[in-house]
Amino acid sequence: MYQDQIIIDGLQYCHWNRDYFKSLRDSGITAVHATLAYHENARETLSQFAKWDQHFENNKDLIMPILEVEDIYQAKASGRVGIFLGAQNCSPIDDEIGLIGVMRKQGLLIMQLTYNNQSLLASGCYEATDSGVTRFGRQAIAEMNRVGMIIDMSHSAEESTLQAIDLSSRPICISHANPAFAHSALRNKSTRVIKALAERGGLIGFSLYPFHLPGGSQCSLSTFCQMVADTAEIIGVEHLSIGSDLCLNQPKQVLEWMRNGRWSKKMDYGEGSASNTGWPAALPWFNASQGMENIYSGLVEQGFSLEDTQKILGGNWLNFLREGLVLEGV
Amino acid sequence: MYQDQIIIDGLQYCHWNRDYFKSLRDSGITAVHATLAYHENARETLSQFAKWDQHFENNKDLIMPILEVEDIYQAKASGRVGIFLGAQNCSPIDDEIGLIGVMRKQGLLIMQLTYNNQSLLASGCYEATDSGVTRFGRQAIAEMNRVGMIIDMSHSAEESTLQAIDLSSRPICISHANPAFAHSALRNKSTRVIKALAERGGLIGFSLYPFHLPGGSQCSLSTFCQMVADTAEIIGVEHLSIGSDLCLNQPKQVLEWMRNGRWSKKMDYGEGSASNTGWPAALPWFNASQGMENIYSGLVEQGFSLEDTQKILGGNWLNFLREGLVLEGV
Repeated sequence: MYQDQIIIDGLQYCHWNRDYFKSLRDSGITAVHATLAYHENARETLSQFAKWDQHFENNKDLIMPILEVEDIYQAKASGRVGIFLGAQNCSPIDDEIGLIGVMRKQGLLIMQLTYNNQSLLASGCYEATDSGVTRFGRQAIAEMNRVGMIIDMSHSAEESTLQAIDLSSRPICISHANPAFAHSALRNKSTRVIKALAERGGLIGFSLYPFHLPGGSQCSLSTFCQMVADTAEIIGVEHLSIGSDLCLNQPKQVLEWMRNGRWSKKMDYGEGSASNTGWPAALPWFNASQGMENIYSGLVEQGFSLEDTQKILGGNWLNFLREGLVLEGV
Repeated sequence: MYQDQIIIDGLQYCHWNRDYFKSLRDSGITAVHATLAYHENARETLSQFAKWDQHFENNKDLIMPILEVEDIYQAKASGRVGIFLGAQNCSPIDDEIGLIGVMRKQGLLIMQLTYNNQSLLASGCYEATDSGVTRFGRQAIAEMNRVGMIIDMSHSAEESTLQAIDLSSRPICISHANPAFAHSALRNKSTRVIKALAERGGLIGFSLYPFHLPGGSQCSLSTFCQMVADTAEIIGVEHLSIGSDLCLNQPKQVLEWMRNGRWSKKMDYGEGSASNTGWPAALPWFNASQGMENIYSGLVEQGFSLEDTQKILGGNWLNFLREGLVLEGV
């Protein structure tokens, strides 16, 4: 049954507080990849770590940090939710290669090379020109491989992503994005990228963020599950997971921070528009953490075996982390 | 024999490079408390950690990081020198209580509350007024106790030190300073402080920095050992150790950084003077890491038993770290 499984959500950025941790725990979810930083620089990222230390201290009964794959089993056994931290951008390392190891030791397990825009490492998916992985980016990939920090290309551009897949000696992930064949969007991924990712042992997490879905907020559970099935046809079940991109209880200022950081003088609407500036309406079948159980049922109904469903809902993330987090260099 | 013992130097700030690591290894020393930061803020401290990561990566055959007391045994067994990192000031935590846990996780095992001047936490030994432990300082002491970061009051003022000893639930250290009865100096400690420190299980490390010694650079090994014996008379052998304050191969700019940081517009000469601006002349019997072996012989000649000599040269630090580094909160 769902409750007995290891369930992992490969991306959330909710308003983290005790009430939400309770609802997460009650939902039966085992572990969540939580976003620590969008545009925060190294110094600001330390404060984000300090905030999480405080969450862990104040909510020991509900959550625990995941630093290695064994911690996920411990979270499950103790009825708590494991949290593993990642950054949606390379801003936490500033311009300093040595901060990759520093941040990894601090508990940053996953880092995107770009967030929509050009970064010091690669091109983001919103840039007109995709110039691929930079000189610093090549060294950063090698260093991330060395220290066991997982590379995430969710918000990166096509050529940059293909190069990162190729340059990385370890499998990489696209923690939260959908295939462009299901819904065309700058944030979604071409079949070429998805195939290349899978060929090198990578993982893609299906996003529940309405802007990434066919039909947006109207996307039905069965349409979603059809997209999963269609992707499984192309690359197999082993490379599939969920990265819900759930952003519950966040004020609009947080959306604006995600979209604008400190780089834009005029308001940038990201995937929205001047006439549609806010958070998209939630999917009725995924408006809280219980959504994972709905997907579980939906995939079974779609025809996935229980075993394959369990892989998509958590088992594949577990295996991916088992390989991806092995510390070699630190 | 000396070579079989665990030998620990409780403070060095040498010019760290492969040649020096080789000379340390060849000296038979087991572990060194290395200063990571004097005035570096949180962001700059990250770069200091990154530098040490690079040292550890490039010199795996010679040195290894000490993060818990077992690592010291491992260093000894593998014939390498263990390095444990500390800060001579509270600058690495900026003004943020949560950075104590962050820095502790990164590997900052020891932190002074002040470096000569007033800090956000307490008064330094060069201030005209010693106002004791501040509001932030009281919380910082509790947090350092919680996470297992050792409090060091080497450069702090008298009343601040007495208060810190009293406020701290764990024993604290004065990693490098001498008793004022042996040589009067702002940096040396009153008998009242030394007694209070020992009563609460604390540790003092005798300094080899000439400005802290009777006779300065002319201080003989036997005069030094007499000071150790006189201190043992007052507080017993269990609380004594060595914190050499060795600063080999450092240019004068480093001395000026230590003394002036960014706080002084005109040159501050610290323990020197306008007519004596540079590093003091080295003690002939402690001008390199072999000095620890000279002290070992000197203490035996002074009449210390082999067992007591071994405690002073390393055993007491080992026991102090065993208690002091236990992680409670992180």
